[in-house]
Amino acid sequence: MSKLLDEVVRELSRLPGIGRRTALRLAMHILRQREDDVASMVAAIGDFRTGIRHCVRCNNLSDNEFCDICADPNRDRSTICVVEQVGDVLSIEKTGQFRGLYHVLGGVISPMSGIAPSDLKIDLLVSNIAAGDIREVILAISTTVEGETTLFYIMNRLRQFNGLKITTIARGIGFGDEIEYADELTISHALANRREIANK
Amino acid sequence: MSKLLDEVVRELSRLPGIGRRTALRLAMHILRQREDDVASMVAAIGDFRTGIRHCVRCNNLSDNEFCDICADPNRDRSTICVVEQVGDVLSIEKTGQFRGLYHVLGGVISPMSGIAPSDLKIDLLVSNIAAGDIREVILAISTTVEGETTLFYIMNRLRQFNGLKITTIARGIGFGDEIEYADELTISHALANRREIANK
Repeated sequence: MSKLLDEVVRELSRLPGIGRRTALRLAMHILRQREDDVASMVAAIGDFRTGIRHCVRCNNLSDNEFCDICADPNRDRSTICVVEQVGDVLSIEKTGQFRGLYHVLGGVISPMSGIAPSDLKIDLLVSNIAAGDIREVILAISTTVEGETTLFYIMNRLRQFNGLKITTIARGIGFGDEIEYADELTISHALANRREIANK
Repeated sequence: MSKLLDEVVRELSRLPGIGRRTALRLAMHILRQREDDVASMVAAIGDFRTGIRHCVRCNNLSDNEFCDICADPNRDRSTICVVEQVGDVLSIEKTGQFRGLYHVLGGVISPMSGIAPSDLKIDLLVSNIAAGDIREVILAISTTVEGETTLFYIMNRLRQFNGLKITTIARGIGFGDEIEYADELTISHALANRREIANK
């Protein structure tokens, strides 16, 4: 077998979710692309790995000391939305509904995976709140066991700040989701938190 | 959003089967790798694209003028196994059952996709057979409509060679496949080509 092919298949199949067969398919695709298109893909990967930084304020991925969101003077600096990871920032930004700042924890507390509170950017969050005029912290964290643990841990840490409003995003049946297939906890929560839509 | 992240996600999501969400997941994975591991992956992709060649005899991917198989003096040079693509060579080589040479067509005839016989390496196959002492050509081509078309086209082109044995790989129910879920054509063929295993 060709060493060059062998090498590219071995490297690509190290990526998560990509087995040897998919790696070979990707290699064949790469072969059909123009050389400079492949060169720019390769450059993008290398530049990303060597050049990317974490925003010193919110831990979001950033090209500079502060990320674009933290550096934006038009964002509401009194509200912080705490999320697990960078992908969550992108998802929330896509809605265009949130004009505050973010705080990226970098994961959730998980004793099973050996992730302690000190492995997350919680101290940075606390010091940001201590330093600035923050009115509300929105905890937008998954409703998994690890997520809830993280949520309670952060709530405890933020208890010291008098007058700070702490909220979590609403839990319930997602749009497009069928009630039949929702789990019991979600249904119970959605029922208990029902909203009045008409009242004669 | 970070330009570096934006760029790597855009480039990765150009790969087949990789959407924005997967591209982001790959980017996060890349971020967790050591810089020199990422550098060697990137180098493998670039080297593959710029350095890989096609074997001048069989059209297999190769690092040199002739691929490792065609260059191997221990292979049986009187038998050629004709396959659609490089992946097929790898799959057949893994069995260790074939000691002849290959011929990689580079696809199948497909008027729907605009692939004509002249787009495949059929002329090269014919001239190889005309030049050498080939006794058997095994056509290991998919049983799709396009595959069968290609098979018949090649059979016609090879009709000129007197004494050349032309075979196709056996069709039937695969090991581990359930008869219940096999298609009618496969079952019909498997029945018609039944083999005697006992005869009192």
